[in-house]
Amino acid sequence: MKLGRLNHVGVAVPDMQAAIAYYRDVMGATLITQPFDMPEQGVKVAFVNTPRQPGALGTDGGTQIELIEPLGETSPIAGFIAKNPAGGQHHLCYEVEDIEAAREWFTAQGKRILGPTRIGAHGTPIFFLHPKDMLGQLTEIMERSHEQH
Amino acid sequence: MKLGRLNHVGVAVPDMQAAIAYYRDVMGATLITQPFDMPEQGVKVAFVNTPRQPGALGTDGGTQIELIEPLGETSPIAGFIAKNPAGGQHHLCYEVEDIEAAREWFTAQGKRILGPTRIGAHGTPIFFLHPKDMLGQLTEIMERSHEQH
Repeated sequence: MKLGRLNHVGVAVPDMQAAIAYYRDVMGATLITQPFDMPEQGVKVAFVNTPRQPGALGTDGGTQIELIEPLGETSPIAGFIAKNPAGGQHHLCYEVEDIEAAREWFTAQGKRILGPTRIGAHGTPIFFLHPKDMLGQLTEIMERSHEQH
Repeated sequence: MKLGRLNHVGVAVPDMQAAIAYYRDVMGATLITQPFDMPEQGVKVAFVNTPRQPGALGTDGGTQIELIEPLGETSPIAGFIAKNPAGGQHHLCYEVEDIEAAREWFTAQGKRILGPTRIGAHGTPIFFLHPKDMLGQLTEIMERSHEQH
C-alpha cells in the first residue's frame, strides 16, 4: 500500500456553533461547510477547508479539519468529550484508492478494524482502525471520491 | 487573519525508529526524512510526507506528519508520552505569512502564547498557543518557508 493523501484531521468539539465561530473568527477560515447530522454514526459533522497551496485561500482542497459534535448521549464520541471537555484531536483520515484492498491489507498486518466498512461523511466507504494498533492514533481509511477534485 | 495551510500534524512517539518503520511498512509512506535532534526543544524530529494531490506519491508537499520523540527526561513531551505510552496526536501546525503579525493577532484575541517566538523544525519562526484557548488543540503557528515550494 502507498500512503494516501491526508484527507482530514477529525477534531471532536463540545459545541458545533462555537467551534465554527472559533475557526472563522480566531483562525480565519473562509470556507466551512454547513453542519449535518449523521444519526447512524451518532455525530454532527462540518468541514473546515484549509488551503492546499501556501498562500491560497482555503478553497482548493487541502487537508480538512472535520469538526465532530456528539449527537445524543450514546454518541461514540461522548466519552471523548467527557474526558476532553474543551474538545481535541480525535482521528486522522487517509485516502485510499480501493477500500476493500485496504481492508485486506490492514487485516493481513494484524491491525484491528473497528466494525464494518460503511459510508462516511464524504459519501464514500470508510473504516476505522484501533488506535492501540496504529501508534496511538485512531485512524480512518477512506476511499477517495473520484468526483472530489 | 486568513487560515493558512495545515503544514503538519505533530504526533508524539515513544520510539522514533519504530514509528518510522510503522509509517513505512504499515502506512506505505515513501518519503520520510532522516530524524534529527532539536536539543533546545527537547525533541528528536522526523517528517513523513503525505501526497498533496489525490493519487500522488507523497513527495509533493501535502500536510506532513511530524514525528516527535522525547529527547531526555526533561523533554516537554515526556509527560505526554507518559500519559499516552503508545504515542498520539500532539499538535496542529498552521502556516502564516508573517509570524509577528500572527503573534499580535492571537494576543489581541486574548489567546495565551507559550513562550517566545523561536526557530522551529523547518528553520522558520514558530510559536505555540495554549490548547485550553484553542478548542483543546495545542496549536503551532509557523511562518512559512518561502523556499519550500
